[in-house]
Amino acid sequence: MNDAPTADRLIINCLPLTADERRRFVDAAAGVRQEFVGDDSMRDQMAWPAGVPEGMRPHATALIGNVPPDGMGDYTRLEWLQTWSAGVDRYLAPGVLPNHVQVTNATGAYGQSVAEHLFAMMWSLMKNLPQYRDRQRAHEWRDAGPALSPKGLTVLVIGTGDIGSTFATMVKGVGAHTLGVRRDPNKPAEGIDSMFGFDALDVLLTKADVVAITVPSSPKTHHLLDAHRFDLLKTGSIVLNAGRGDVIDPAALHDAMGRLRGVGLDVTEPEPLPAEDPLWDEPRCLITPHVAGGNHLGITVERIIEIALDNVANYAHGRPLHNLVHR
Amino acid sequence: MNDAPTADRLIINCLPLTADERRRFVDAAAGVRQEFVGDDSMRDQMAWPAGVPEGMRPHATALIGNVPPDGMGDYTRLEWLQTWSAGVDRYLAPGVLPNHVQVTNATGAYGQSVAEHLFAMMWSLMKNLPQYRDRQRAHEWRDAGPALSPKGLTVLVIGTGDIGSTFATMVKGVGAHTLGVRRDPNKPAEGIDSMFGFDALDVLLTKADVVAITVPSSPKTHHLLDAHRFDLLKTGSIVLNAGRGDVIDPAALHDAMGRLRGVGLDVTEPEPLPAEDPLWDEPRCLITPHVAGGNHLGITVERIIEIALDNVANYAHGRPLHNLVHR
Repeated sequence: MNDAPTADRLIINCLPLTADERRRFVDAAAGVRQEFVGDDSMRDQMAWPAGVPEGMRPHATALIGNVPPDGMGDYTRLEWLQTWSAGVDRYLAPGVLPNHVQVTNATGAYGQSVAEHLFAMMWSLMKNLPQYRDRQRAHEWRDAGPALSPKGLTVLVIGTGDIGSTFATMVKGVGAHTLGVRRDPNKPAEGIDSMFGFDALDVLLTKADVVAITVPSSPKTHHLLDAHRFDLLKTGSIVLNAGRGDVIDPAALHDAMGRLRGVGLDVTEPEPLPAEDPLWDEPRCLITPHVAGGNHLGITVERIIEIALDNVANYAHGRPLHNLVHR
Repeated sequence: MNDAPTADRLIINCLPLTADERRRFVDAAAGVRQEFVGDDSMRDQMAWPAGVPEGMRPHATALIGNVPPDGMGDYTRLEWLQTWSAGVDRYLAPGVLPNHVQVTNATGAYGQSVAEHLFAMMWSLMKNLPQYRDRQRAHEWRDAGPALSPKGLTVLVIGTGDIGSTFATMVKGVGAHTLGVRRDPNKPAEGIDSMFGFDALDVLLTKADVVAITVPSSPKTHHLLDAHRFDLLKTGSIVLNAGRGDVIDPAALHDAMGRLRGVGLDVTEPEPLPAEDPLWDEPRCLITPHVAGGNHLGITVERIIEIALDNVANYAHGRPLHNLVHR
């Protein structure tokens, strides 16, 4: 991209920026033309629109935002796409983007938001809060029995990237012992006391009081928690999933439910969960509609902006881009 | 109590002890007779029974357990009462116990349990989990909007004893700034960044994102949060109460509810909350039936046992008792 004359480059930015933030982007890439098409009022929304005027698209050499993948053909001069999502699978699918287009993502922006949501679900289940909410609706002042404390418990974190590591650090902070599972167990992660490979998963499941899933969807993680593995879980344990819904086999979950203390799911299979799905009525299951990792937390938005701002400066000065997705 | 011959003393212990624990008590007070009348199977129950056979009562010189106060007249030789509660008001009422009887309580045993319950309620409200539970019951996959993180927020803790201090330490651990209010502001408390007296309360209420109440009931705390003080609260703030229900004026709470993000109550006025009370139906209010401070956490029971065990040894060896309530 160093070959293109500076004046010829155009960055289209779909982020919902304030006037001050737009100024920071302008300052970061003096001399490179930038168009801001985002809507500041959408900032707290779960998903942001990315509406680029059609006439502008053929001139863009860089694009910040998750525009519809099936419209990427309009961006004939594109050199770089910065997404505000962590996942970029839809842009890497064959035929969507030419190979020379660099794709960078927002990995690192969602860790705190998703980890905190998992943490809140864990505490809620440990203190029987979903049951108390049900009793509240029935105007019923009635004890729901013993509570749990994370102090001294063993928490198994499956997938120890940004989200898993942040969650592990939080549960360690309240006294839990943490086990981690990742593809390369020689790579440590903050917050994980002991790291293992996926070959150790069956043994680890027998030791965990809480199992937290943060792995993405892949052929290797499809129905990773199946009937056999649910059988390995301790009676009274807690299972949390904020990775992808299909990591848990729903039929196996249904059969295991009676033995578990609680299940917290921010992702399901399928998604959205159909109104007739029996999972809705499991009293020990707490369901949230895939909201852990959206833009509901101010800090997430700030981090996405920092990632984009850093890369806009890199792009303008011909430096290597960060958060580059290799393919 | 040193005057009484050792063989003549009798400790009646109502704690729900295991055989091993009974042995520890016997070892701690070798030479002093002990009778164990507790039922181990009641251990996880919210309230323990304290059933002492009538014939045994006149012989007891020490009693461990919350026996009915109106039956204290049967214990004619009593020198010492160790309660398993933190509150002992009922035993200090005029006419219940002669003045020479020493009363010791279980202060320190409940801090973690109540603080964790407050912490769980706070996280639940920050992540909209009560709303999601309601939508789950309606089989509704629908976003409830922006979430909160405690990171960088200001948490005001009213009452900074064992419970308040433990809660403050927990919220500091997840990135909050903590303000404390106590009778003697010169006395620091762990977890509190800045301590104030009750005269500063009005100013502090305007600064807090979360207000957590842990003070006991007293003429000074009755309706401490009244209409005027609710008006001082920031829009979108969270109020938590695990102290006593009457610290909050229910009419003022009702009027303020629309301005608050959420309210978590483990105590109410009156208690139990009558089935027809409109508070049950406030969607932003999460109600639990005074369960934060019971015996639902294993650690609480362990700490009560440690307190009693320590005092049994003190009693047997003629040393001063700990956790003595002054009157």
